[in-house]
Amino acid sequence: MNTRDTLKINNVGHIEIGGCDTVQLAEKFGTPLYVIDIDYITKIIDVFTKTIESEYGNGRMLYASKALSNMAMYKLVAGTSAGCDVVSEGELYTALKAGFPAEKLELHGNNKLPREIEMAIQNNINCIVLDNFDDIKLVAEIAKNNNKVVEVLLRLNPGISAHTHEFIMTACEDSKFGLSISNGTAIEGIGEILKQPSLKFRGIHTHIGSQIFEHEAYVETARVMTDFMLVIKETYGVETEELNMGGGFGIYYEGEDKVFTIETYKNHLLALINAVKSEIKKKSLKKPFLTVEPGRAVVGEAGVTLYTVGSVKDIPNIRKYVMIDGGMFDNPRYALYGSRYSACIANRANETADDLITLAGKCCESGDIISKDIMLQKAKKGDLVCVFSTGAYNYSMASNYNRNYIPPMVAVQNGKADYMVKPQNNQDIVRNDVIPEFIK
Amino acid sequence: MNTRDTLKINNVGHIEIGGCDTVQLAEKFGTPLYVIDIDYITKIIDVFTKTIESEYGNGRMLYASKALSNMAMYKLVAGTSAGCDVVSEGELYTALKAGFPAEKLELHGNNKLPREIEMAIQNNINCIVLDNFDDIKLVAEIAKNNNKVVEVLLRLNPGISAHTHEFIMTACEDSKFGLSISNGTAIEGIGEILKQPSLKFRGIHTHIGSQIFEHEAYVETARVMTDFMLVIKETYGVETEELNMGGGFGIYYEGEDKVFTIETYKNHLLALINAVKSEIKKKSLKKPFLTVEPGRAVVGEAGVTLYTVGSVKDIPNIRKYVMIDGGMFDNPRYALYGSRYSACIANRANETADDLITLAGKCCESGDIISKDIMLQKAKKGDLVCVFSTGAYNYSMASNYNRNYIPPMVAVQNGKADYMVKPQNNQDIVRNDVIPEFIK
Repeated sequence: MNTRDTLKINNVGHIEIGGCDTVQLAEKFGTPLYVIDIDYITKIIDVFTKTIESEYGNGRMLYASKALSNMAMYKLVAGTSAGCDVVSEGELYTALKAGFPAEKLELHGNNKLPREIEMAIQNNINCIVLDNFDDIKLVAEIAKNNNKVVEVLLRLNPGISAHTHEFIMTACEDSKFGLSISNGTAIEGIGEILKQPSLKFRGIHTHIGSQIFEHEAYVETARVMTDFMLVIKETYGVETEELNMGGGFGIYYEGEDKVFTIETYKNHLLALINAVKSEIKKKSLKKPFLTVEPGRAVVGEAGVTLYTVGSVKDIPNIRKYVMIDGGMFDNPRYALYGSRYSACIANRANETADDLITLAGKCCESGDIISKDIMLQKAKKGDLVCVFSTGAYNYSMASNYNRNYIPPMVAVQNGKADYMVKPQNNQDIVRNDVIPEFIK
Repeated sequence: MNTRDTLKINNVGHIEIGGCDTVQLAEKFGTPLYVIDIDYITKIIDVFTKTIESEYGNGRMLYASKALSNMAMYKLVAGTSAGCDVVSEGELYTALKAGFPAEKLELHGNNKLPREIEMAIQNNINCIVLDNFDDIKLVAEIAKNNNKVVEVLLRLNPGISAHTHEFIMTACEDSKFGLSISNGTAIEGIGEILKQPSLKFRGIHTHIGSQIFEHEAYVETARVMTDFMLVIKETYGVETEELNMGGGFGIYYEGEDKVFTIETYKNHLLALINAVKSEIKKKSLKKPFLTVEPGRAVVGEAGVTLYTVGSVKDIPNIRKYVMIDGGMFDNPRYALYGSRYSACIANRANETADDLITLAGKCCESGDIISKDIMLQKAKKGDLVCVFSTGAYNYSMASNYNRNYIPPMVAVQNGKADYMVKPQNNQDIVRNDVIPEFIK
């Protein structure tokens, strides 16, 4: 547990978030329950946007909405100076429906569908990040058919292996994302863009992965990307107006993970900014507009999930399972990546966490674990479990596996709590089910 | 590709399933699209139910509905002599809504919620499989409060390690499921059940895992379970009326997997039946009612998924990515288990599959792969990809990750095709989104 003003143990020994006692939240909204600390999000966005403004100048932060996408999130980000990136028709629709300004939206994706591109262009979003030759052609064609000139960036693969999980390492040579600088397809891709009258080349983009903790990875990325800006200038005589460095800032989950505070995020971003500034100066390049795209860092630690203990199964000398009313349907990250989470008994948070347990869900699957081998206060049936750092990639990856309901999500701020996502019910489960006439 | 009467290459070189040309299905219903071959399912159920009837006598097959659960599936199974097991309120609701007879339903789960148990009891389902001491107490209490006596089985952990993926190996000593025979909690659990006036002890259950290919695993399970029936008899003087051996029969996915035909399923089940019969005879036990619970085997190979190629990205000497309009949101099994699937270009299925490719999805994540390093016909933008054996644990595990839409599902039979699950749209995506008043 990484405590802060808005996440702490209160004077009755309960976990309190956003001024709300989690025991009362569970009573009012039931469990499992996602809880989002609104002030944490606005603080993080503030640090990112202000640091870019004061230390770099012409730049911006985009919230990578795939980490947590729903109408309330877009509304929240709309109240800041940050923009958003979206990666599907569903995300774009949600953002627009929440009143998010189209001119602060950016469309990403390695395989955008024609209807997604069309919707983005017709709504005049800020720009589209192109991924590959088919994507360049398709976007150019749809822009042309809509009589528009679309501003675009090209996603590059800089061939950098960040130290992270294989599945979230996105810029080594073997990646489905972007065009490779080293094999020559990236510079060829820029040429393709420049040939298209319906596209306006604005800049280059990369994203080296997620859960990045080392400044070195960003320094190396800044070097490679600015080298490529030189190549673009030499090859086509064109300045790169925008440099999008992606996101990937890590968050604290458990144990040996680094603890990120508002201050360390600032320092982390400063390292990135200084690396870009120094490379730009060294190479006498025109200073590009700088974009960074944190997602997980914005919402990850803002969220906790509350569960009720249904049973404790102690298998002597083997493992003690604390079984809760959620599982991989609301948080598949252990099943997907072997992720670890810290947790505590929210109704007795001031007791010592001296019990080694594994937090298991209710799905009919052995991999249905939330966190393996963690220290917890001694749990018993009826206890409330609070799992930390679940704001990113929990709700957004949730499923109806075993036809379980996706938990509701509440926003908390200054002691107030209200739904961001309402609970599902059995009507949601069968809504699209139909029985063909020939099944008797 | 494991061809059969209802899954083959037709005379124009297209994949045909249930008498429907997949190219026409894609034109009519769009992609991505789940397609389910109804005749395959009824044939498999027929083999299981008839083999139990002719070779064992008093027994039954339960379809483990977590593999694929929707109203049409329950309606289909309702037309056979098989029952179903359900593991949540959502599955139980779906089954009842489809008109599935409650007396053929069974409730499972390691952490059943009170409302799930209550719903099962109030609807008079066939029986409940208890998992642990808390579960025994809770079900007994809810049964008592409803003035009912509920027939129950106890899930046992026989301590058997089947050769399969860690996440789907469910009966080694270290498992969240059931009570362990070897550490004495199982026999203690039977005692607890016998003490409860609102519970009627009917039998024992186990499930040793999924994707089991060796007869030996079932032989060993039959030995351990019948040994335990003897222990129950000696300890409490009680006969075990029902022996539920679970499921876990493997299916063909790709490459070196065994190919299962109707005939091999029959032989596999025969091995299980003969093992049970032989152990029963050897131990002079009263012949129990025998239950088997295949899920994946019933629907896995019945399903294919159709996708459209959006782009082909060849990274020389590294990997060639064929990018399709689906991904881990409709099939997370590579991301979860590193699963492999065979696939082909459905519109040119008669061409040689001589291209080594990786089938990647449209999600913003490197792990968003459907099948890695498989042989495929040379793919190009616009081609239709057919991925085989996707009937189980694809739709049931699907999510709205990246706010992508869960694909619709169509049933096919004798050249007819109709929705089992209608397509999602943007209203489904934002249906439960709300903006709290305090988010400005």
